[in-house]
Amino acid sequence: MDRVKASIVGGSGYSGGELLRLLLGHLNVEVRQVTSERLAGKLVFKAHPNLRKRTQLQFAKMAELRPCDLLFLCLPHGEAMGRIDALKSIAPRIIDLSADFRLRSEEAYQEWYGKPHGRPELLGQFIYGIPELHREEMRKANLISSAGCNATVTILGLYPFYKLGLVDTDRTVVEVKVGSSEGGNTPSASSHHPERSGAVRSFMPTNHRHSGEVIQELGFGKPIQVHLSVTSIELVRGALATSHVFLKAKLEDKDIWQALRKFYGQEPFIRIVKEAEGTHRYPEPKWLVGTNYCDIGFQRDEKSNRLVVISAIDNLMKGAAGQALQAFNIMHGFQETAGLEFPGLHPL
Amino acid sequence: MDRVKASIVGGSGYSGGELLRLLLGHLNVEVRQVTSERLAGKLVFKAHPNLRKRTQLQFAKMAELRPCDLLFLCLPHGEAMGRIDALKSIAPRIIDLSADFRLRSEEAYQEWYGKPHGRPELLGQFIYGIPELHREEMRKANLISSAGCNATVTILGLYPFYKLGLVDTDRTVVEVKVGSSEGGNTPSASSHHPERSGAVRSFMPTNHRHSGEVIQELGFGKPIQVHLSVTSIELVRGALATSHVFLKAKLEDKDIWQALRKFYGQEPFIRIVKEAEGTHRYPEPKWLVGTNYCDIGFQRDEKSNRLVVISAIDNLMKGAAGQALQAFNIMHGFQETAGLEFPGLHPL
Amino acid sequence: MDRVKASIVGGSGYSGGELLRLLLGHLNVEVRQVTSERLAGKLVFKAHPNLRKRTQLQFAKMAELRPCDLLFLCLPHGEAMGRIDALKSIAPRIIDLSADFRLRSEEAYQEWYGKPHGRPELLGQFIYGIPELHREEMRKANLISSAGCNATVTILGLYPFYKLGLVDTDRTVVEVKVGSSEGGNTPSASSHHPERSGAVRSFMPTNHRHSGEVIQELGFGKPIQVHLSVTSIELVRGALATSHVFLKAKLEDKDIWQALRKFYGQEPFIRIVKEAEGTHRYPEPKWLVGTNYCDIGFQRDEKSNRLVVISAIDNLMKGAAGQALQAFNIMHGFQETAGLEFPGLHPL
Amino acid sequence: MDRVKASIVGGSGYSGGELLRLLLGHLNVEVRQVTSERLAGKLVFKAHPNLRKRTQLQFAKMAELRPCDLLFLCLPHGEAMGRIDALKSIAPRIIDLSADFRLRSEEAYQEWYGKPHGRPELLGQFIYGIPELHREEMRKANLISSAGCNATVTILGLYPFYKLGLVDTDRTVVEVKVGSSEGGNTPSASSHHPERSGAVRSFMPTNHRHSGEVIQELGFGKPIQVHLSVTSIELVRGALATSHVFLKAKLEDKDIWQALRKFYGQEPFIRIVKEAEGTHRYPEPKWLVGTNYCDIGFQRDEKSNRLVVISAIDNLMKGAAGQALQAFNIMHGFQETAGLEFPGLHPL
Repeated sequence: MDRVKASIVGGSGYSGGELLRLLLGHLNVEVRQVTSERLAGKLVFKAHPNLRKRTQLQFAKMAELRPCDLLFLCLPHGEAMGRIDALKSIAPRIIDLSADFRLRSEEAYQEWYGKPHGRPELLGQFIYGIPELHREEMRKANLISSAGCNATVTILGLYPFYKLGLVDTDRTVVEVKVGSSEGGNTPSASSHHPERSGAVRSFMPTNHRHSGEVIQELGFGKPIQVHLSVTSIELVRGALATSHVFLKAKLEDKDIWQALRKFYGQEPFIRIVKEAEGTHRYPEPKWLVGTNYCDIGFQRDEKSNRLVVISAIDNLMKGAAGQALQAFNIMHGFQETAGLEFPGLHPL
Repeated sequence: MDRVKASIVGGSGYSGGELLRLLLGHLNVEVRQVTSERLAGKLVFKAHPNLRKRTQLQFAKMAELRPCDLLFLCLPHGEAMGRIDALKSIAPRIIDLSADFRLRSEEAYQEWYGKPHGRPELLGQFIYGIPELHREEMRKANLISSAGCNATVTILGLYPFYKLGLVDTDRTVVEVKVGSSEGGNTPSASSHHPERSGAVRSFMPTNHRHSGEVIQELGFGKPIQVHLSVTSIELVRGALATSHVFLKAKLEDKDIWQALRKFYGQEPFIRIVKEAEGTHRYPEPKWLVGTNYCDIGFQRDEKSNRLVVISAIDNLMKGAAGQALQAFNIMHGFQETAGLEFPGLHPL
Repeated sequence: MDRVKASIVGGSGYSGGELLRLLLGHLNVEVRQVTSERLAGKLVFKAHPNLRKRTQLQFAKMAELRPCDLLFLCLPHGEAMGRIDALKSIAPRIIDLSADFRLRSEEAYQEWYGKPHGRPELLGQFIYGIPELHREEMRKANLISSAGCNATVTILGLYPFYKLGLVDTDRTVVEVKVGSSEGGNTPSASSHHPERSGAVRSFMPTNHRHSGEVIQELGFGKPIQVHLSVTSIELVRGALATSHVFLKAKLEDKDIWQALRKFYGQEPFIRIVKEAEGTHRYPEPKWLVGTNYCDIGFQRDEKSNRLVVISAIDNLMKGAAGQALQAFNIMHGFQETAGLEFPGLHPL
Repeated sequence: MDRVKASIVGGSGYSGGELLRLLLGHLNVEVRQVTSERLAGKLVFKAHPNLRKRTQLQFAKMAELRPCDLLFLCLPHGEAMGRIDALKSIAPRIIDLSADFRLRSEEAYQEWYGKPHGRPELLGQFIYGIPELHREEMRKANLISSAGCNATVTILGLYPFYKLGLVDTDRTVVEVKVGSSEGGNTPSASSHHPERSGAVRSFMPTNHRHSGEVIQELGFGKPIQVHLSVTSIELVRGALATSHVFLKAKLEDKDIWQALRKFYGQEPFIRIVKEAEGTHRYPEPKWLVGTNYCDIGFQRDEKSNRLVVISAIDNLMKGAAGQALQAFNIMHGFQETAGLEFPGLHPL
């Protein structure tokens, strides 16, 4: 079978590097080019030390991009929308990992990003990139917008309960704990190791942009409120969402299990983790490092109608590059798990 | 001035060791004995390496306790209530750091601890050990029960808003992030470094016992609901509570500031931390390590009536030994900050 | 092609779990059984959370082992030698990951383990398990003893220089920095997270048992002295050896490069890492996590005849399970990298 | 008693902040000014969050410095020598924490810093700032140059053995493990948390500048060789030196103890840590965080003449601000431990 010729636009950052790692191990892909304006001409393994002896690729400039089958865009937020026409002329298919085309509504973009969208007419053309929700649309899509990491971990944890109409849609509180790789690879005073190490830092107590994605995907067209906070903790990779939802009716554990299995029973990358004993009773992001899994667990509050849903991902994988590759596989009719077989490490 | 002769019952653990560190630096205290059944006869610095060259005290057995002015009890939960008469015969004053006498109601104890209290008639006799709420009662108390760490950080963050009646008392969701020292000094499979390191572990998604303390102190006698979860993260010392409260009326930032200042403006160990810029915009537990501070910050959600209150402590200090010593100082009419002057470290 | 039927004896620990992870992804292997006396009957993913949804294998008891093609032994040190006859009757080929058959001399075993070996007549029969040194012998071996982690990282860094006779063989000082997974999965007071976290702990300043392996492999039959220390640091996986060797003659950087390339130029799992600039100038174990690489770098001291050789591995991979699988591949004539393709993660 | 009026020149960095923390708690000191060109006019607690509610001092510009009794210089290396005359006109006494005046010889400065010294005639006028070696000279000194952190931890561990002539002075290998705070507070690609976290990074395998200080203090005027490497590990504060020295004659443990006690038996900030059992058998920097201790332990190699000396400090305390204050106390005839009473924390 001919391999898909793919290039990565913006490959010096963490998502781009992770995607490159995955693509190099994918039997149906030929990586053509990886761009970086800053590092053009340098070997990619100088930026991504894990790829030494794996590839002799050098970074190219964006202006040097040659036609190919598909472009993965790993540009900073706000850059893809300005270049989208030029990029579409290079490849018929695009998977954008930035936030530019995640929201379908111009108003929502204005609300969460605080400025008008540059190409509002394109907003409806990208499929929102969570395969568990949009797999069928992906099969025939040419444009996919990969979902935000905090949005992904939240949405996947809550989707069955919202879809089944089991919860009060105004009361949910979501507290996401995240690692430092979410902030990208640009050093700053707050990412300086002596300051960031051991931090428990309220990064976005309110108003986190990924809220817009959660509302879009869980609201099903109706207005809902999701009270989301993000806290940075001592961790490089990983995101864990603790979602507090309030059930409309009294449910038993078996009802919760049933809801999760109904939607996720056949999903290759979702695991339900809920054990009565041992160390590994609930999802933990560290066992997911390098994998495309989203692990989901829960505990009901016996004293109230609260259900705590716990969901975990690797933010650079299921929250970025891995999920993008999963969508790529679906788009091309490949085995959905191709290139995503790594099971994670224990211990770590 | 004569120094208070104090002994520590159960001094091999983390709270007991921390208390000993503080008492050795307190000018008005003479440490008489420190007990440990397991380590009796050994030098205390073998258990607490920071105290090498600071004290030549050896652990004694509980049976060897001699009369003194005050006993600090650092026994495992459930042990103090069975020995309380014997201990009261040794010293006229007792500060108990365990959970045994924190709840004032027999029913609440049964609800949160799942078994009847052994000495229910004593429950009302201990002053609940948060000085900011019970300072006046402490001045004449002989029995004080030091508050739970997660309860302390939650209550201090929320007290002004509850006391002023500003919040919906059934909707609050509190997510506490805690370090490994909260689990005490007994090794287990889940505290084994390769498992615990880098963990983001849902320790108690629901039903955490400290909820009972929060309800007692914030309910003012009326039933309220507090939806509390505790998550263990990579951290040894420290607890950060992210509390999501829902305001009854629209408030501005200045109203929130005013509420906090009204109750805490004169408090020596409460600091309001809310900066518009820089790395240190909200409370962070790592700057509190070794100190008795509770730092409190907040952010209002512009899109809803949610107020996020962020509060941080060192769980072994303001959450245990430090707060116990603060109560001790009040009880004896000493300077409230005596022995608690350490300002914390930066960086750490 | 028929797959090799392999079983793991002692599969609840970290090396056994890592080996299972690798074997499950190896196209030429069928995992038959994994034993654990303690967990017999339980699903293996309860012990190894990364293997959830990857295998439904349950732990068996050792007494339940059925005949197969090859046994991997991951028993505690000292156990394999007492059971070796019984184990050999189960499978014609054995790869032992314990320390029991690493040393070829009875006297060396007595010296480093402080007791006589139980089956000294077998000591010469196992091939010492570093493929870069013993590849040819492995091709026809039925018995392989996988090398110690600290020995592996030290030997691989130093081998070219010793083999070429470039160094003073009595002066070398090796300082190995190691993570907590080297200590295995049994909790103890010293592995308790609040104690072990952030530790810089002199684990074995002198007399580390792996010294015997280093002397055996680098001495080429002549007595040499290797001054080895091991220090535990904040890290779960990984070992970095800083080896200070003293050159007999003045050498230039190009001579050092030449020596390394001569021995390692064609090696699939050795990379020379030495950059003039950037963050990634020397080997670092964190980029090797989950991989079978040994990265080697160096710096000459311009002011003396000292050469500092820096070598890094993942102790559970190149230092245990990965290297065992590499030997397995050689033994069976498989692609040497089969099942060992994971390139490692950046960032981590 | 009148308090000493002291100012800190260069107070926005980690050493300056630590010094300020200490001075604010010192009964015999009045802090007059703290300078920072970058932060002039801002409250010092914006840079040092631990000092919130402890001081309302604002940063001043260097040009605004007013006459005082003593200046602490915490400027970047190379800056003090160019301004020293101006600074001496502001205060009669100076304690310089930079590297500018540590070496007594112009040639040594040229050798280790790679350029000529700007004021070589002053090199002999500063007392080298390790009180355990130069206490008597400090009593009458007006100019003190605080020692380098890696030099301090190395020198203190080795001094007794070198002074007594027990070791081969050409063979010593010193491997120092250090935390990220040694690199100062300026963010860079290599200090970015996702890169720096979990690192075991060969920072200076050879040619570390502090070697010059070690040679100066341990050579007693004769040429010696010290083979020093520095490796950055996951740690913010702390330095641990593992020093491998080779004894001229066979010594027993009691001889080593005797040598250490002879020099350090009365020292307030040196502790000998060597236990036969337990977790805390050797020095560990984490128990020293915030303290001015240098802990020293050792192990003899039974199989050779190697002695491993293990020494640990907090690099910002005994390696910088703490040691500077200790020198300050000696200079003024104050209690040597004044302001340095903090015993450190357990656990941490």
